[in-house]
Parts: sequence; structure tokens; C-alpha cells
Amino acid sequence: MSSQPTPDSRPRGRPRKAPAEAEARRRLIRTGLIHLTEKGYSAVGIDQVLRDADVPKGSFYHYFRSKEDFGLQLVDAYHDYFAAKLDHWFLNETLAPVMRLKEFMRDAEAGMARHQFARGCLVGNLGQEMGALPEPFRARLSGVLEDWQRRTATCLGQARESGEIAPHHDPAALAAFFWIGWEGAVLRAKLDRSPEALRRFADGFITLIEG
Amino acid sequence: MSSQPTPDSRPRGRPRKAPAEAEARRRLIRTGLIHLTEKGYSAVGIDQVLRDADVPKGSFYHYFRSKEDFGLQLVDAYHDYFAAKLDHWFLNETLAPVMRLKEFMRDAEAGMARHQFARGCLVGNLGQEMGALPEPFRARLSGVLEDWQRRTATCLGQARESGEIAPHHDPAALAAFFWIGWEGAVLRAKLDRSPEALRRFADGFITLIEG
Repeated sequence: MSSQPTPDSRPRGRPRKAPAEAEARRRLIRTGLIHLTEKGYSAVGIDQVLRDADVPKGSFYHYFRSKEDFGLQLVDAYHDYFAAKLDHWFLNETLAPVMRLKEFMRDAEAGMARHQFARGCLVGNLGQEMGALPEPFRARLSGVLEDWQRRTATCLGQARESGEIAPHHDPAALAAFFWIGWEGAVLRAKLDRSPEALRRFADGFITLIEG
Repeated sequence: MSSQPTPDSRPRGRPRKAPAEAEARRRLIRTGLIHLTEKGYSAVGIDQVLRDADVPKGSFYHYFRSKEDFGLQLVDAYHDYFAAKLDHWFLNETLAPVMRLKEFMRDAEAGMARHQFARGCLVGNLGQEMGALPEPFRARLSGVLEDWQRRTATCLGQARESGEIAPHHDPAALAAFFWIGWEGAVLRAKLDRSPEALRRFADGFITLIEG
């Protein structure tokens, strides 16, 4: 019904070249996400990010007022990235709702395995460090988790409607329980460098909702 | 059957005065635990701990070879402290086994509330930071969690024997699930400065084991 070009209808070929500066910002965000999902906020210095992103210091301060501002923009970027990932799974109507959740967990495990379980969740890492972070991080991190919970609750609500989970379950409460435990599982998978904690939490959670 | 003096049989009065140096070590450990449960390892400097413990630098290096050594000894001290706390609840035969677990969780919530939910779990904090920590921390932290799991599994095994939880449950698997999720709940309680995550995880876990 729309005549707007979609990604698939554009001619193949190289993407338009982005301006060098926007490219520098993207590299800083990407490099920052790698460092902070591995090591957290406190242990990572801006100089290290600049070096690995191969970006001069001036560019950094063109985009970010400070390390704090950089950290908050990383949280926003991670939020966008992860919301798209959740939508990809949770809005997939070719799968039954509980299977969408299972596939999300399986995909998250595969994502951690690709980096030898060295990278965790940015929100979990920074949440754990909250005692050492500037106060504006608190509301931002809580807000991200609440957003993920809402998307998860919608999926679990559909699971209840379709009879996959019992009607006595409250989808919002289950979604909150899920994100509490899932962040714990990601933490533990990183510590143990193993998928075991993710699988164990996944199995327990599925037993809980199907029970 | 034993003629060895027990703490209760010693005459009342002031404890023997500890040598000043042992007292300095205790102060360093106590102060280190406060700082690291609030802020983690990377964000805390030794100078800050020395200042707050009111101990000269020389004393620090009398007891600890390095920040790493200090951190590992803090993990050991926390392990001892926490093992005693778990035993206090889990070996309390005046309570039914599931009630012991509930009381442990209630007590842990009260402990966090006493410090306005600013202090988390040392093992969770350091586990989350593992990407930035010296490698010897990994086995030490995993070992502590496995020890807590074993103590918890014993209690859950008794709950199964007494019929409080269904015979199809595997106490070791439940205990592993518990510690994965409980660390996530402590993280979230600290982020939100609220007991809600602890209560939500506690309720979900009890539903799971009683189901």
C-alpha cells in the first residue's frame, strides 16, 4: 500500500558513505559498548576507547561532554539495539509466545558464546556498579529494564491468552521476575564462562510459567 | 563430652585486647568490605580504604601484597561471614526447611535496608566486574557461589524429605537456580534502592519449589 522505498527495494551496491564525523561517533559507541559490556564503567578509561576506536580526542569531545555523557549515550544505544532484538523475537507471530521467549534466550546464549562469554549485559554491569556511578544513571538504567519488562509482559500476556500458561499468572509480575533472574544468569555465565547459568535459569523459568 | 572451653564457658568481661596490628587488619577488611559491596573493585582505591580505616599505608602492605591480594582476602572474609549466616538460618532445626530459606531472604532484605540498599553482594559485584579483574578472582568467586549452593541444596533436600516440596525437584538444581536469581535480585534492589526485586524473586522461587 506504500510507495516508500523499503530496504529491499533499494538498488544493491555500497551504502552511501557516511560523513567521517558521524562514522567516528559510531565507532566510539561500538567500541565503548564492547569495553563496557566486558569490564563495566569504572574500569574503562576514555583514552583506551579512543585508541581502540582509532579516533582523536577532539572527536570524542565533539560528541560527548564527558565520560558520564558518553556512558549515558551508550545506555541509550544499547537500549535501542536491545529493544529491536526483543521485538524481533517477541513480535514474531510465526512462533507461539512461549517459543518466542525460548528463542530469545537461545539467541542470547549464542550471542554470549560468540564472545566466549566475556561480554555481559551493559545494563546489568552498570546496575551492579551503581554505587560508583553518577546518579543520573540510576533512572536511566531502571527505565531500560522497565521497558524490557513491558515488552516481555506483552509476550507473556499473549501466552496466557493462547492458553500456553495458566490464567492465574500475572504477565507483568512474571516479566519482572524474568529480568531479575536473567540479569543474574548473564552475570553468572560471564563469571563461569559457560552457558550453564543461562540454561538453568531458562529451564526454571519455563517450568515456573508452565506450572 | 569435651572439656575444651567454649565461648559460653569463658568468664565474662572485656575480650583480650588484640594486638594493634591485628586490629588494623580487621579495620582494613571491614572498611574494604563496605567500599567494595557498595562500589565494586575497580572504582575503589586503596588510599580511600586506608583513609577511612585510619590505617597507615605501611600496615596495609604488612598484611596485603597488593590490591589484588587485598581483594582476594576480602572475598575469603566475606565467604566466612556469609557461610556463618547461611548456617545460622539453614541449620536452624526449630524451623521447617522452607521457612529457613524464607527467613534467610527476609533477613537479607533487612540487611540491605539497614544501608538504604546501597550495599550489594561482594561476590555479585566482583563477578559482574570479572572482565576487569585479575584472573585468580574467577575460581575464587565461582567457588564461593558453589559453596553457598551446596549449603542451600542441603536445606532444600531436607524440604523434599519432609514433603514440603515435591519429590520431582532436584535440590542441587533448585539451589543453583536460587543463587543465579538471588544475585540478580540483589543487583536490582541496589539499582532501584528498593526491596521489591528481592520480594518478587523470593515469591517466584517459593512458588516454583512448592509447585
